[in-house]
Amino acid sequence: MKFLRVKMDELKVYTEEVPEKYQKLAGRALTSRLICDEVPATCHPLGPKAKLFIAPGAVTGTSAPSSARVSVGGKSPLTWGIKEANAGTPVAQYLARLGIKALIIEGETKDGYWTLKVSKDAAKLEPAGDLVGKGLYEAYHALKERYPGAGFIACGPAAERKLSMSGVCFSDTDGRPSRYSGRGGLGAVMAAKGIKFIVVDPAWTSPVVAENRELFKTGQAKLADAILTHPLSKPGGTLNTYGTAALINALNEAGGLPTRNFRTGRFEGAAKISGERMAEVVKERGGAGMMGQGCHPGCTIKCSNVYPKPDGTELVSCIEYESDWALGANCGIDDLDAIAEMVWHCNDLGIDTIEAGVTIGVAMEAGLLQFGDAAGALALFEEIRKGSALGHILGQGAAFTGRAFGVVRVPTVKGQGMPAYEPRAVKGIGITYITSPMGADHTAGYTTAPEILSVGGKADPLSNEGKADLSKAFQDTTAFIDMTGYCLFIAFPILDIASGFEGMVETVNAVLGTNFTGADVAKFGGEIMSWERGFNRAAGMTSAHDRPPEFMRYEPLPPHNTVWDVPDEELDKIAGN
Amino acid sequence: MKFLRVKMDELKVYTEEVPEKYQKLAGRALTSRLICDEVPATCHPLGPKAKLFIAPGAVTGTSAPSSARVSVGGKSPLTWGIKEANAGTPVAQYLARLGIKALIIEGETKDGYWTLKVSKDAAKLEPAGDLVGKGLYEAYHALKERYPGAGFIACGPAAERKLSMSGVCFSDTDGRPSRYSGRGGLGAVMAAKGIKFIVVDPAWTSPVVAENRELFKTGQAKLADAILTHPLSKPGGTLNTYGTAALINALNEAGGLPTRNFRTGRFEGAAKISGERMAEVVKERGGAGMMGQGCHPGCTIKCSNVYPKPDGTELVSCIEYESDWALGANCGIDDLDAIAEMVWHCNDLGIDTIEAGVTIGVAMEAGLLQFGDAAGALALFEEIRKGSALGHILGQGAAFTGRAFGVVRVPTVKGQGMPAYEPRAVKGIGITYITSPMGADHTAGYTTAPEILSVGGKADPLSNEGKADLSKAFQDTTAFIDMTGYCLFIAFPILDIASGFEGMVETVNAVLGTNFTGADVAKFGGEIMSWERGFNRAAGMTSAHDRPPEFMRYEPLPPHNTVWDVPDEELDKIAGN
Repeated sequence: MKFLRVKMDELKVYTEEVPEKYQKLAGRALTSRLICDEVPATCHPLGPKAKLFIAPGAVTGTSAPSSARVSVGGKSPLTWGIKEANAGTPVAQYLARLGIKALIIEGETKDGYWTLKVSKDAAKLEPAGDLVGKGLYEAYHALKERYPGAGFIACGPAAERKLSMSGVCFSDTDGRPSRYSGRGGLGAVMAAKGIKFIVVDPAWTSPVVAENRELFKTGQAKLADAILTHPLSKPGGTLNTYGTAALINALNEAGGLPTRNFRTGRFEGAAKISGERMAEVVKERGGAGMMGQGCHPGCTIKCSNVYPKPDGTELVSCIEYESDWALGANCGIDDLDAIAEMVWHCNDLGIDTIEAGVTIGVAMEAGLLQFGDAAGALALFEEIRKGSALGHILGQGAAFTGRAFGVVRVPTVKGQGMPAYEPRAVKGIGITYITSPMGADHTAGYTTAPEILSVGGKADPLSNEGKADLSKAFQDTTAFIDMTGYCLFIAFPILDIASGFEGMVETVNAVLGTNFTGADVAKFGGEIMSWERGFNRAAGMTSAHDRPPEFMRYEPLPPHNTVWDVPDEELDKIAGN
Repeated sequence: MKFLRVKMDELKVYTEEVPEKYQKLAGRALTSRLICDEVPATCHPLGPKAKLFIAPGAVTGTSAPSSARVSVGGKSPLTWGIKEANAGTPVAQYLARLGIKALIIEGETKDGYWTLKVSKDAAKLEPAGDLVGKGLYEAYHALKERYPGAGFIACGPAAERKLSMSGVCFSDTDGRPSRYSGRGGLGAVMAAKGIKFIVVDPAWTSPVVAENRELFKTGQAKLADAILTHPLSKPGGTLNTYGTAALINALNEAGGLPTRNFRTGRFEGAAKISGERMAEVVKERGGAGMMGQGCHPGCTIKCSNVYPKPDGTELVSCIEYESDWALGANCGIDDLDAIAEMVWHCNDLGIDTIEAGVTIGVAMEAGLLQFGDAAGALALFEEIRKGSALGHILGQGAAFTGRAFGVVRVPTVKGQGMPAYEPRAVKGIGITYITSPMGADHTAGYTTAPEILSVGGKADPLSNEGKADLSKAFQDTTAFIDMTGYCLFIAFPILDIASGFEGMVETVNAVLGTNFTGADVAKFGGEIMSWERGFNRAAGMTSAHDRPPEFMRYEPLPPHNTVWDVPDEELDKIAGN
């Protein structure tokens, strides 16, 4: 494996041997370590000292199931702290097959935007040319024609405007701009470096083979068996049938579905935007619509989808639970077609659907438009597209929009918009939002599993009891999983099926040459988190940043009429503040 | 003396005895202590838990010379740290004569804006009525007619929009809206509480008489003598003749006049906007124009002015050095009439001239308009006035505008725009900007005195040698002066004339009943600063916030081609981080 270091001030690409200290790292562990080692914590995230790191997971590119995750890391222009955002995409596999342990992009050019082309024998930069400024659907369509068989990484038009809700976009199995390292504005970092597209051509490469083939085979079988057995992840199971939006009804039932900018925990329109309804629409309309799609070859969970227009032609892929909630319930919008159209705009502009939806909710709170106004919400994407002053406000995210208009009810932590679980009604995930070094992030420690889904045990979502420990255990374990390259959804089967957990660890050891035990998973994950917290401290964050939005402390949330009442000391236990 | 506590959630005013712990405090010492005691450090500055404090200085209202300062304090919506901003105004004297040690405004009302009326026998709230939303010139004109003889405190239309460049406005000797506690957005805090105007009627009150009349008389005589003797502060001296804008030529000469968003330290148009030129214009045009005006009765320094239109009628009062620089050199504008007009807009909208000018410089850096475009700059005030999206960006200040447009060259510290002295060319004031708990603030420790003006000794502005100690000494001493109610300009005479310094301390002791020695001045000032730093730490600030804008470290500043190279350890010595 190698590092590709792209020096944009020189417009040159250097191939480097991987220093020993990084050889046993991958994915989030690698990007976070590199950030700590190479990025000055107090630098401007869009300035010349900032860097962007792209690293596939440890087992990515092998035949391990559901393992095509790639981590993107850097200093976030949204939170101004450390950021890792990962995506599931065939491009992750291509990078691994090309032997690229990490792409490192540094320096900056004032000489326009560039395309980095990476293939088996070469890595070079050329001017990005005519596709600069174009929507990503048009751009990816053109790239597909120009580079058949390749995968694409890009930042979108929003990133060109340095908007901090910009994600880094990866192509899906059909070359669509739909798989995102969405959170934290890393697309704007990519744009600030001067890189617009990365073309990753896997021609003449083969799947990655584990160093210890026997151990890998054993582990792979155990893990695959667990995935194929568990009711959430198995073929024909919940995720495969309804997609992640199956959570809409579950959270609504629990009173934890944030509605109208976190004013209530139930949405009267929930059924109309649920995963169940989505599956019905797909069936009713026929044509291009499909549930149960994989985001990469080798996934058996297949939770993705293609949402059709009324005439059956493709509207967008895919509508995730978080996007559905953010642009739906959180804005008081119960129209799936409108939500799908907004997701299309997010993909085309290259922005994070969660941050977009939370921002629109705050704009509604500010009185710029009414809750439930789908046409008005859609029009806001045009503001971002044309780069109006309003677009520059919205595009910088929910916290920024709140400050622009003096809004006090702003559901963010460390400047990042809260995802689809109400902290006042689901306390464990609230602790994760508040204490994660990434800012409010549900994927950082998904305690919703025991709190809502009865996976990995059962926990009362409304209770504070033991929740700090629960969140910490989930956060530490997740940091490890984010290193492996496995999709976080393997957490459901491996939480409930011990052999699946073993299999996960064994495949990682087989590839990295490590000797992780089961107990090491949370331990090493905790170490990764401590690096990340160290960066944030050096960047200026303290326990005061591990705090909820103030209004959640004094405003009771219907229907349970609970406030955020987890003691600050419990929060501080997690980071050791 | 008493506290007036205005509970906006009850729409009631309570008179409180001053608790013993606050009796020996006044001005900044009192507002900062009250903030630490009563405001949760992590609260939203525009939320219901935030409070606003208004406190005249210790000797304010007496016959002590140049002593009509009033401190406004709260959690800043600009820096999200502690804030004290003081103004020189007859209203400070009225508050003291009414026996009001502090006005405390807390809670919030959703029931529109209110006017607080304070007089000898009463304090009551009434709906603010027809003057809400009006420019402050129109509003103050109406208030003067309705309440003859009273002084006025207000937040302007910008504050009603919760813009964090909004100041708290005080009336001058002619009832104009021209004396500002400008920095840090405390106008928006006032508006968020629901208070629009405060009418302060001094009828049937008398000047404050010191407890120890003899000591006061002695001290007052010494101080007055120093002020009347020193070349900067004496009648016919520099400040009296040219106003504070006398500094334009001095800083330009030193290569420390930040020009075109801090790109160079010299402005080719400096002479056209200098204090010397301003005095000529006033003389040439005749009519209403005047140099050498006092901001309150009892000032002998008289550094204020009225700037006339070409036809001799009044355009605006007054053009300070900072305003002149911010809206002039910093924007590449060399047209005094245009600068005067922009100052008028600032006064009318209720915004800080420094933050406005630094923000326009950043907007120019972002390419929204060209440097030197006076008409374009003037048009931006209309955006703020009408509350457009662009107005909401600009109105939130320079750091916010920089983030909106992805600008890396943003001259702010802790989110507050840098004033008129280039840190790379005047190192001591740079240390003050960077380490002051207030954010970039020249009045927090004016080392320019020895570095540029040869007052209080001489120091090479380009040298780092001893500058941390110099800045700390100035910051500590300034915190004390900000308690006294004296204008900071007494610093010039008392730095050079020892008996003046003694007189300052004696008058304070005579009024407060304290026993401060000369050595106690910096010591007690340092204690006030430690309270303020404690609040900021609790609000989440660390040594990482005591850092310069990154670009100043790597971008040399012409003409001296120096970068910011004061070691971080020197900065950290000041706050004891």
